[in-house]
Amino acid sequence: MADEPDSQLLASPLQLFNGIAAQGERVRALKDAKAPKDDIDSAVKLLLSLKMNYKATVGEDYNPDCPPGTLAPGTKGGQEDCEDFVDPWTVRTSSAKGIDYDKLIVQFGSSKIDKELINRIERATKQRPHRFLRRGVFFSHRDMNQVLDAYESGKPFYLYTGRGPSSEAMHVGHLIPFIFTKWLQDVFNVPLVVQMSDDEKYLWKDLTLEQAYGYTLENAKDIIACGFDINKTFIFSDLEYMGMSPGFYKNVVKIQKHVTFNQVKGIFGFTDSDCIGKISFPAVQAAPSFSNSFPQIFRDRTDIQCLIPCAIDQDPYFRMTRDVAPRIGYPKPALLHSTFFPALQGAQTKMSASDPNSSIFLTDSAKQIKTKVNKHAFSGGRDTVEEHRQFGGNCDVDVSFMYLTFFLEDDDRLEQIRKDYTSGAMLTGELKKTLIDVLQPLIAEHQARRKEVTDEMVKEFMTPRPLSFHFQ
Amino acid sequence: MADEPDSQLLASPLQLFNGIAAQGERVRALKDAKAPKDDIDSAVKLLLSLKMNYKATVGEDYNPDCPPGTLAPGTKGGQEDCEDFVDPWTVRTSSAKGIDYDKLIVQFGSSKIDKELINRIERATKQRPHRFLRRGVFFSHRDMNQVLDAYESGKPFYLYTGRGPSSEAMHVGHLIPFIFTKWLQDVFNVPLVVQMSDDEKYLWKDLTLEQAYGYTLENAKDIIACGFDINKTFIFSDLEYMGMSPGFYKNVVKIQKHVTFNQVKGIFGFTDSDCIGKISFPAVQAAPSFSNSFPQIFRDRTDIQCLIPCAIDQDPYFRMTRDVAPRIGYPKPALLHSTFFPALQGAQTKMSASDPNSSIFLTDSAKQIKTKVNKHAFSGGRDTVEEHRQFGGNCDVDVSFMYLTFFLEDDDRLEQIRKDYTSGAMLTGELKKTLIDVLQPLIAEHQARRKEVTDEMVKEFMTPRPLSFHFQ
Repeated sequence: MADEPDSQLLASPLQLFNGIAAQGERVRALKDAKAPKDDIDSAVKLLLSLKMNYKATVGEDYNPDCPPGTLAPGTKGGQEDCEDFVDPWTVRTSSAKGIDYDKLIVQFGSSKIDKELINRIERATKQRPHRFLRRGVFFSHRDMNQVLDAYESGKPFYLYTGRGPSSEAMHVGHLIPFIFTKWLQDVFNVPLVVQMSDDEKYLWKDLTLEQAYGYTLENAKDIIACGFDINKTFIFSDLEYMGMSPGFYKNVVKIQKHVTFNQVKGIFGFTDSDCIGKISFPAVQAAPSFSNSFPQIFRDRTDIQCLIPCAIDQDPYFRMTRDVAPRIGYPKPALLHSTFFPALQGAQTKMSASDPNSSIFLTDSAKQIKTKVNKHAFSGGRDTVEEHRQFGGNCDVDVSFMYLTFFLEDDDRLEQIRKDYTSGAMLTGELKKTLIDVLQPLIAEHQARRKEVTDEMVKEFMTPRPLSFHFQ
Repeated sequence: MADEPDSQLLASPLQLFNGIAAQGERVRALKDAKAPKDDIDSAVKLLLSLKMNYKATVGEDYNPDCPPGTLAPGTKGGQEDCEDFVDPWTVRTSSAKGIDYDKLIVQFGSSKIDKELINRIERATKQRPHRFLRRGVFFSHRDMNQVLDAYESGKPFYLYTGRGPSSEAMHVGHLIPFIFTKWLQDVFNVPLVVQMSDDEKYLWKDLTLEQAYGYTLENAKDIIACGFDINKTFIFSDLEYMGMSPGFYKNVVKIQKHVTFNQVKGIFGFTDSDCIGKISFPAVQAAPSFSNSFPQIFRDRTDIQCLIPCAIDQDPYFRMTRDVAPRIGYPKPALLHSTFFPALQGAQTKMSASDPNSSIFLTDSAKQIKTKVNKHAFSGGRDTVEEHRQFGGNCDVDVSFMYLTFFLEDDDRLEQIRKDYTSGAMLTGELKKTLIDVLQPLIAEHQARRKEVTDEMVKEFMTPRPLSFHFQ
């Protein structure tokens, strides 16, 4: 089963459909190339099993002329599952509670981070699980048990995460993966690579190369301020590192050979009008999942397992990566997926770095934080104090409460707030004050740490070099 | 006119059609992006002029639903111009004389290298024009007069050519661009960069990265054996140099941002089933046309004119490059195009490195050369000696005679052979003997020079370093 495109076995009907089309092409290509009979047979076998799986999920035979979007409403697997839409550029939901993450797990074919897995992480690391695990902020994974198997038998792994530097401004939501990754680095004692995809931002945005690289340097300071260990962390700009590494471009080309336009069209929705840079970029985001992209750290080792903590919207890149990996002889990266950090205005969308009122920025003053929370944080409270006392507030849609689940460490206190707000004992003003009291020192401390990050430190973090890493 | 897609003004009807479609998209993209009114206006103006040009060429209004292939036969600009087909992967003609190069000049929208231009090169360099110029082997150009303008006013330029290392075996045909480029380097005293596109060969062929890079090293020895000046020549493997240069990848990404899938589909015939590596590769072949891809040679200069000697089948890459150049603020590269070197079996196709009898290989012994020419070189002679003496032979289809036009330096002797063979005074056996006498020492000398090329020399040629170059 190692070289099955696993992303396509538990995906949405349309993904299943696209997966079959792509596999059909692979079969034709093998036949055209007069490939060995065994290779063709196993590709045909996979095609047939994909079609059987399609029928089982969608309830109809695969018909190349009839994509699943054209099914009658109400059909199992039809449109009603697609209210929420998530890809690297769009997150859409009509619910004030935000995305239905349980449905997303089914749609993406990932696994839920359940109590059992959290307990296993606790046993393995001998550390209390991070509040992001306790509270379901990191809610989904791929192959985390495999990482733990390896870790428990003393085998090395490494962490990979990243940031698209689209502007100088980062908000608290951008810190979520980095706060968690820092914790993972500490408790597992493993090296970390951080991709700054300035090439991606140059391709997608109206930026010059110089601007995109400038944002990389600024954002790197905020990332370093999260407390990463300089002896175990390599931060790299794609634009810069591609020209400094004997391994990175080779892996990019390897991946690019094994992904067709049809596949990226199915996964990312690219069209014929997209520039060829966008079309080939997914390979650049995929390449750091393979350890020989960093020969200065892992020498020529190709077999070191990678674990990627990221927001769930980045999963399409890594579904593609996991599909390619066995075909180029590399292990599939494992993943830990986070939910989205809600905008102040509500959980229907991700925050926007271009709207200063949509979130708390890392440069906000204590006063700005207070004003923003009081003025813009969507409230689950009632219209009047009397009604609120009588009927209580709704924590499920209250953004201040949501933010507290991300940043208030004390579980008991959070639970007390939930009870008091739901019962009406706590008013919206009090809830907002609690959040302000949590955010103000958090941001101030971040700002203080960032101030200490010098250009020389940025340069050192970004210099290709060996990291403290135990080979086995 | 600087930012007009010049490749589309004198191209085939289908290219014109695709050019209009692409420009239409550009207009829509500008409008979507709410670009400045001036930018939109000038894009719309170009769109209208492309449509007028289409009507003038094809004789019908542009109709997006009716590509020019659907025209009635006999319509001006219709299918009858397309008997010959040339792109980087296919050269097809039904004529034993080979491709009709005059038609190709019209189809590609390039300019003929005429007597006037050859005289100008002679005046500028104070050297007798190379036999490849005298005999029309290099027959077509783009902007060569501009290069000479610059050269005469003392401005620097550089040469760029390349090779796709698909196997260890190179044949004499592969030497044509290198023999001519060596002459250009000598008479103009300019630096040269040679791209070994091992990434391309990895993407297109059933090769590993290691094999493709191995072929690069072997082929580099044959190229060095042509006599290039080590102080003025940089040979680079894409797979290696991409990871060594602070400028190369940045230019690749710049180009990739400004070319859509629609455009490469129109130019190269890519389909949705092609891998994303192929789709984005044209940017890698384009990037060395811009001087800041080589900061070790040209520092941060972006304005140094590039001149590309290559076989005409590579022109589609550089039509694309010339279309992009002004949009990213770089000068368009100039080109010198050669005809194809015919296979021993006749001029209908290019030679194949995989068929040892289709050409003279650089590793052939004197005996192999003799046997191949005698046994396989297609003859324009008559069936019997008597007929030959009476009616004469046909130099236009005789491969031995064609090879002599490439390799026999003496114009008078070549003309005498043409006369004698055409009249019947010279028999096929004598003609073949003349060719064998020219090829045997030529190949033996190449082999002797290649033997002297050490691994250290290859390494030095391939090390990014300053070259002897006069900035101005």
